[in-house]
Amino acid sequence: MQVVTATSVAPSAPEAYGAAGVIMREIFTAATGAPTFAMRHFEVAPGGQTLHHFHPWEHEVYILDGAGELIGEDGAHPFAAGDCCYTAPNELHQFRNTGALPLRFLCIIPNSPSAAAMETPVRTVDSTTEGATSCDVSDWRMTEAAQPAHA
Amino acid sequence: MQVVTATSVAPSAPEAYGAAGVIMREIFTAATGAPTFAMRHFEVAPGGQTLHHFHPWEHEVYILDGAGELIGEDGAHPFAAGDCCYTAPNELHQFRNTGALPLRFLCIIPNSPSAAAMETPVRTVDSTTEGATSCDVSDWRMTEAAQPAHA
Repeated sequence: MQVVTATSVAPSAPEAYGAAGVIMREIFTAATGAPTFAMRHFEVAPGGQTLHHFHPWEHEVYILDGAGELIGEDGAHPFAAGDCCYTAPNELHQFRNTGALPLRFLCIIPNSPSAAAMETPVRTVDSTTEGATSCDVSDWRMTEAAQPAHA
Repeated sequence: MQVVTATSVAPSAPEAYGAAGVIMREIFTAATGAPTFAMRHFEVAPGGQTLHHFHPWEHEVYILDGAGELIGEDGAHPFAAGDCCYTAPNELHQFRNTGALPLRFLCIIPNSPSAAAMETPVRTVDSTTEGATSCDVSDWRMTEAAQPAHA
């Protein structure tokens, strides 16, 4: 049993997440004993954005403060505080802060991708996903207990 | 890809969760296609509380609004908005609203308990957990894809 104030957790180096203006705090992870999934707290500065990418694990996101857009292949999905966003395994996505205030959200990910996601052929970047980045999933296949390195 | 306003999701019948004053909204679950874990939004009225219980799956909780206490065998752990609470598989717990305003939190659970949790002998209620309720885990053992029925 633990009670932790989110902002008391040391932030990870933003540059590790491929986008300027992003701070991540890992609240509960496999390293803290969480057996199935990890809770991370993100802060994105005005004008900032997470990496435009895809990977074989899902995101479940809750928007705490601010406003922005979830970018998919079908365009931009606006969101604001109190909204929940889901991106499926292997789905292209990016979170952008389009507001004047910091964007804060929780992003929960599995400790390892689901078996179904890993059976899905890994997509390749093509003309419809220009500029997108595929995370390296080889680490996942070798060590499922590892945490993904990107938002 | 989905963007859903949490409060737009129909609430579940509070009486199903063993405690007065509790409303649950299931945002993302196995039924909505989430492969690994479920995000639920809870609101607990002033003076309200969730069931005092334990079960073989963990909780990762984020306190959105209000204040209260997480009750464990070692006593009460106070929390307020911005705090994150973790309860391990088979750990006795209860969330109480001790404030004058509604308590709102996210509670994320696995779609099925971890293998490690299921290998742990199921604890029994004893004098140290008087009044506590053990959730029926037999359904889990029969159908791991099922959702737990309690907070």
